[in-house]
Amino acid sequence: MKIARRTVDGPDGQSARILVAAPDDDAWYDLRTAVRLHALQRGATVESANRLAAALVPSSLAQALGGGDVFADAMKRTLDERPNEAKVVEPVLTNALDPITYRDFMVFERHFSFGYKWQGKPVPEIMYELPISYAGDPRSFLGPDDVIPWPGYTERLDYELELGIVIGRTGTDLTPDTALDHVLGLTILNDVSARDIQAREMAGGLGPSKGKHFACVTGPLVTSLDEIDESGLGMRVRVNGETWCETTSAEMVWSVAEIVAWASQGEILRPGALLGTGTCNGGSTVEIERMLSPGDVIELEIDQLGTLRNRLGQPAAAGWHPKPLSRTADGEAATVKFLR
Amino acid sequence: MKIARRTVDGPDGQSARILVAAPDDDAWYDLRTAVRLHALQRGATVESANRLAAALVPSSLAQALGGGDVFADAMKRTLDERPNEAKVVEPVLTNALDPITYRDFMVFERHFSFGYKWQGKPVPEIMYELPISYAGDPRSFLGPDDVIPWPGYTERLDYELELGIVIGRTGTDLTPDTALDHVLGLTILNDVSARDIQAREMAGGLGPSKGKHFACVTGPLVTSLDEIDESGLGMRVRVNGETWCETTSAEMVWSVAEIVAWASQGEILRPGALLGTGTCNGGSTVEIERMLSPGDVIELEIDQLGTLRNRLGQPAAAGWHPKPLSRTADGEAATVKFLR
Repeated sequence: MKIARRTVDGPDGQSARILVAAPDDDAWYDLRTAVRLHALQRGATVESANRLAAALVPSSLAQALGGGDVFADAMKRTLDERPNEAKVVEPVLTNALDPITYRDFMVFERHFSFGYKWQGKPVPEIMYELPISYAGDPRSFLGPDDVIPWPGYTERLDYELELGIVIGRTGTDLTPDTALDHVLGLTILNDVSARDIQAREMAGGLGPSKGKHFACVTGPLVTSLDEIDESGLGMRVRVNGETWCETTSAEMVWSVAEIVAWASQGEILRPGALLGTGTCNGGSTVEIERMLSPGDVIELEIDQLGTLRNRLGQPAAAGWHPKPLSRTADGEAATVKFLR
Repeated sequence: MKIARRTVDGPDGQSARILVAAPDDDAWYDLRTAVRLHALQRGATVESANRLAAALVPSSLAQALGGGDVFADAMKRTLDERPNEAKVVEPVLTNALDPITYRDFMVFERHFSFGYKWQGKPVPEIMYELPISYAGDPRSFLGPDDVIPWPGYTERLDYELELGIVIGRTGTDLTPDTALDHVLGLTILNDVSARDIQAREMAGGLGPSKGKHFACVTGPLVTSLDEIDESGLGMRVRVNGETWCETTSAEMVWSVAEIVAWASQGEILRPGALLGTGTCNGGSTVEIERMLSPGDVIELEIDQLGTLRNRLGQPAAAGWHPKPLSRTADGEAATVKFLR
């Protein structure tokens, strides 16, 4: 099954509608329309059919996934019946998932080895002991064809081509054997990065935050795990139509099942959570010694997950920036006084 | 103004209700009840008054804050009128804020200096250049009197006493002069930490994630900025009734206004976002060479923000843990092959 969202106009502005498509068919079906039609067939009044469909199929995919099998059954029934009145021709797609939380791991060895070298550090032993991660901002997600903002505090904007793992079902303390039952599917993830501020932040050992939180992109669709083999997907980057990266998900050193199982230890993974694999090998500009410019068009492509295309915006005006602190040691005390 | 949430029982289980209190009065008022009563006085039917009150005052404080001045006006009117029927005696409080995003800074110099020393590193220069941060999990928040879970993968659980900054109004590219207009108020924050796994993760330079994401605590209330002076609040920790820390917010090297302004550069700060100041000086066990045990009762107290009291749970059973990767260098290539 494939899941996406389209943008529609209405009296209160634009809103998103969840779409589903069967593996053997290119056609998209509007899920709320299908659920409304089904309720009408089952004797609901027009108003009640609308109300029930809106409750079961909200605009948010993350919220919809909270419906558990009640929602999953509606997706399945829609693709069994494929009602013609719910068919959508050439939908305008937005980000398939509006994640409730977002955590990004680092499981491509050539990428993370380069990253530490770039920071002037050896690869830490922990990278071979367990998959580590940082949390991003789940509220800053963009979708296909959105313009990626260029913050005023960076001169070095970058893309990162990653697999995004969409959690479909609540789970805790999972093992690699049980983890995949909690995954809805995979999507393309562009973990947009501001490299200069990221490097400064990471010298402090936290985050990164300002290097990442201004934007992240997913889409155009989520493909369910039963349709794909995560371990051998071709992954490609094109910038302004030129291929800058061609690689494969086979080079992950931790599997999707291991990432999900570890993420779930001692905490609750919720429907609508997004986990990233980290950048694939060669999947950012720093490691291939290229640079991006405002207006560049980035296309990220993964087999069976489509192409995620975005243009970079123009740099924003520089805003307020903290002033460095002046320090004077205060006699013998460990305390340091700060002078502005 | 003070804002809190209480837990109430209903036919569908427990839910949360937003409470407000005036600066000069200990009494709490149930905001949804007050809005319902106001609508009735203005000629609404009983059903419509319920519907309007539920829409304006949902269970979630973060969602309610999304109502902007429509919501702020309702809080203000309630405290102007203080309707007796909405008064609540001895409410059972839950976490005041269910944040939509959570980012934690490090602005107490003695704490972060200790932290780097503890990791065997010098204090990086960036700590004096700007406030850095990591993102936590906004979905793992607990409130007053909740038991803090002890994950199976840690032997070293710790509290962190911090000021929590609650964003009340959308803002972007703010300056220290405009930032405080976007802050609803302050609350107590316990950024619960699993020190052993945190130290391992931070050796990789990302996060921390597993060292933090299993639990975080806020509450018992949010006090609006007009009632307090952030720069001189007494902060105390008691463990099983014994004082382990006594310090002050005066030692922050970046102000609340600077933290909020920097957080907002190039991105949208949203109502219901939570920013932490990082641990106050002496506000965790590692820096005072103490250890916590299962069952310990942690009380965090900040002037005018109340006391946040929680008991530590019993350690969970050990779950699945990633197996370290075996490596063999592949001739002269930088590529490393992984053997399971």
